[in-house]
Amino acid sequence: MAKSKFEYVRLFEVDDRCLPNTWIVVRVDGKGFHKFSTEHGYEKPNDIKALSLMNRAATSVMEEFKDICLAYGQSDEYSFVFRKETQAYSRRSAKLSTNVCSLFTSAFVYYWNEYFPTIKPRYPPVFDGRTVLYPSNQNIRDYLSWRQADCHINNLYNTTFWALILKGGLTPTEAENKLKGTLSGDKNEILFSQFAINYNTEPEMLRKGTVLVRRKVAVALPNGGTREKSQIVQEHVDIIGDEFWNTNTHLLTLT
Amino acid sequence: MAKSKFEYVRLFEVDDRCLPNTWIVVRVDGKGFHKFSTEHGYEKPNDIKALSLMNRAATSVMEEFKDICLAYGQSDEYSFVFRKETQAYSRRSAKLSTNVCSLFTSAFVYYWNEYFPTIKPRYPPVFDGRTVLYPSNQNIRDYLSWRQADCHINNLYNTTFWALILKGGLTPTEAENKLKGTLSGDKNEILFSQFAINYNTEPEMLRKGTVLVRRKVAVALPNGGTREKSQIVQEHVDIIGDEFWNTNTHLLTLT
Amino acid sequence: MAKSKFEYVRLFEVDDRCLPNTWIVVRVDGKGFHKFSTEHGYEKPNDIKALSLMNRAATSVMEEFKDICLAYGQSDEYSFVFRKETQAYSRRSAKLSTNVCSLFTSAFVYYWNEYFPTIKPRYPPVFDGRTVLYPSNQNIRDYLSWRQADCHINNLYNTTFWALILKGGLTPTEAENKLKGTLSGDKNEILFSQFAINYNTEPEMLRKGTVLVRRKVAVALPNGGTREKSQIVQEHVDIIGDEFWNTNTHLLTLT
Amino acid sequence: MAKSKFEYVRLFEVDDRCLPNTWIVVRVDGKGFHKFSTEHGYEKPNDIKALSLMNRAATSVMEEFKDICLAYGQSDEYSFVFRKETQAYSRRSAKLSTNVCSLFTSAFVYYWNEYFPTIKPRYPPVFDGRTVLYPSNQNIRDYLSWRQADCHINNLYNTTFWALILKGGLTPTEAENKLKGTLSGDKNEILFSQFAINYNTEPEMLRKGTVLVRRKVAVALPNGGTREKSQIVQEHVDIIGDEFWNTNTHLLTLT
Repeated sequence: MAKSKFEYVRLFEVDDRCLPNTWIVVRVDGKGFHKFSTEHGYEKPNDIKALSLMNRAATSVMEEFKDICLAYGQSDEYSFVFRKETQAYSRRSAKLSTNVCSLFTSAFVYYWNEYFPTIKPRYPPVFDGRTVLYPSNQNIRDYLSWRQADCHINNLYNTTFWALILKGGLTPTEAENKLKGTLSGDKNEILFSQFAINYNTEPEMLRKGTVLVRRKVAVALPNGGTREKSQIVQEHVDIIGDEFWNTNTHLLTLT
Repeated sequence: MAKSKFEYVRLFEVDDRCLPNTWIVVRVDGKGFHKFSTEHGYEKPNDIKALSLMNRAATSVMEEFKDICLAYGQSDEYSFVFRKETQAYSRRSAKLSTNVCSLFTSAFVYYWNEYFPTIKPRYPPVFDGRTVLYPSNQNIRDYLSWRQADCHINNLYNTTFWALILKGGLTPTEAENKLKGTLSGDKNEILFSQFAINYNTEPEMLRKGTVLVRRKVAVALPNGGTREKSQIVQEHVDIIGDEFWNTNTHLLTLT
Repeated sequence: MAKSKFEYVRLFEVDDRCLPNTWIVVRVDGKGFHKFSTEHGYEKPNDIKALSLMNRAATSVMEEFKDICLAYGQSDEYSFVFRKETQAYSRRSAKLSTNVCSLFTSAFVYYWNEYFPTIKPRYPPVFDGRTVLYPSNQNIRDYLSWRQADCHINNLYNTTFWALILKGGLTPTEAENKLKGTLSGDKNEILFSQFAINYNTEPEMLRKGTVLVRRKVAVALPNGGTREKSQIVQEHVDIIGDEFWNTNTHLLTLT
Repeated sequence: MAKSKFEYVRLFEVDDRCLPNTWIVVRVDGKGFHKFSTEHGYEKPNDIKALSLMNRAATSVMEEFKDICLAYGQSDEYSFVFRKETQAYSRRSAKLSTNVCSLFTSAFVYYWNEYFPTIKPRYPPVFDGRTVLYPSNQNIRDYLSWRQADCHINNLYNTTFWALILKGGLTPTEAENKLKGTLSGDKNEILFSQFAINYNTEPEMLRKGTVLVRRKVAVALPNGGTREKSQIVQEHVDIIGDEFWNTNTHLLTLT
């Protein structure tokens, strides 16, 4: 097509390609989700439907981007790990963050009524996104450990906080004051002695968050046999220790 | 809250603040919308409902970001112009592009059934986003002129292309061949002589795209009087020439 | 020539081109020059020879880079202003800062003995460099005003500080204490009443710093006539007020 | 000191810190050294004095920056490898490249007359600089291999080229034509059969370039004993193969 004399403005766009041979993480975060969760009646301290919708949206992202080898989600955030050697969008930072963020948001709204069939969202929910680079395997593991440790710390706090309110009859301010300065052991003790809750037997999805990886799974064939197929599966496991990585060595090696 | 030993990974995030005193444009672009529009039965060459939905989504973005002084949309893209002095998100490039892109996408899906009540989207639509800086008033005007010239060039082509097919009975390949190497005047002539279409009287929304700006409009009061209120309005006008800018001098001056 | 299999490492180099249509400043700063000036017996509070050597080195830079329209120096620093539209080194930030910085350093050492014929430098002096962008004419003027205001503030302080020591017999600590909390007027008063120094009649090179610009100057021809030639000249004038810019309008306009 | 109202212009400076846990290479390159070497009578194909001056300048840089663990030089270029975990200048890219580049240039001019006592440089020589990041040990080794392979390719070419001219009586154009399309083996053969030069016994400094590393060396004490001291030493060895790295494992491990 003909080009206009205004075409020169394209020169103002910058080249933002990510350093090669480096892990690329795109993390999406709910914007104002404290308010959003309250306005849409999310159950406290955790709403399984809402977390499941997050997992559904993340699965859409992972289906689209074959170079995402692992995703990790908790609360209103999800991290997508692109293989070190990915050439998706020529590794352009903004292309990666906006595409992932847009698809995640789109799928969240698109699949909303499968999880909340009786509630229409009151307004369009928003997730922001960012691209961060991690050079070494240790760095990317530490990044994921950081998010899972964050999940643990927040979930133990929230579980205790809401038990004090919903079962203990405290006001939010009273609950907050009671928890001020407490350590993990203190919160476990409150849960157990006051509410007979053994935190360690709470659902792993809440305590660990959700890991999405691709697994070969057996698929039934019409003739009665089976064949292997790569599928995105949800796991609620510890990714801070070595065990997960020792049994999934392919994740950190070049393909 | 307690911090984990993994916290150090935050140091890998980069500071991507935009140069001060510079126009910031965030442009969102439909991803694979040629396919998307076909699969969802968009009318050719233009689908008024689809364009209206784009305008609706863009209005949501502009309602959220008070520092967007003007937005311009055409086809499956929308450009949002932030005031030079905006401090939104501390001018962080990725924050701006992902928030705008996510909200635009979210609103597009959210309001879809107001415009396409009988069709459910077959999959979540995606828009990518980018942030581009323009230092001078001339540069930002040239950027917008570039997009509007693009609108004109593409729309004249598409209008002629689809007239040849829908009214002239040509195949797409035949239409493409017929238009190869033609200039604007040639296409105008084909439209007029073969199909009695005066391109210049086609709807301005299609020929010019849509400009969103804030205008003071009179609002009726219960007591029968009126008061002025700032409102986002859609205009389908030329923004390449000087007239629009001479009558809207506030857009390019500091507030 | 043949290429090796290691060639891929070039892909790790980044594209650091500066935003178009923006003023580019490269500023070089002496590294550890407080120590350097003491070790080389610079006169206090100002050493005319040292400042002249700085001006000589800056002139070398400006001779090499035709797109530097103005340079401003004071103390152990020099700022070089490239025209907004320069394409020198494709506007690559690191190319500009390292070339300017290397040439400035090289010329400083090269011409040293023209200014300090009896002293050999005790070690190689170092200047660091940085590239900063300024979008508007007001911004670039404010940048230069910032540096000249810095020159004024520091020079008034140093002139008074060293008068108290060299003529008033104070120790450095006593002089520092005496000046703590004083305003400009106080320092002028100390200079005038105690040492009969009218600060406003001190040499302009010290109070204003040095501006390098290109001027057409008349050059004598062998035949007795003259012709105009562009030459880099040193001026010690105020560049904060409007007068300089009103009489040098060509500096801020596109060429 | 008092701050002026112009101080805001500092906000236009960008944060250019390098990604953590990544090898930082600063490479300096002679600007226009083909011309410079001719004008200063450098011997062809190699001038030992000029290479030694390069090594002297590089040693100054390495003495100053303790975090440079290795430097590699050949022809008119030198690469400095900062340890992955260096915090020198907070890892700011421009600070690193300009300081290294300025010191290298300064030392080159400063020590010039130790190597060329009878020739004064005709003008100040210039080196540009750049900062490049390499995430993995393999990448940084490949970077250094790239430079050493470049040394080999160029030096074999130049050795043959100048033998054809200086000993074979060819003009530069004739020599160039004769070498067009030749492989390494061809050049070795020309050297051996026509000029009885066994390329493999040429000085290693020319064939391999120069590696600077820190070594513990024994230093004589006044009492007749010795003590160990860390010293920067020059080695002319292969750094493409594994041997160098196997015997210097400390270079690629965190300290």
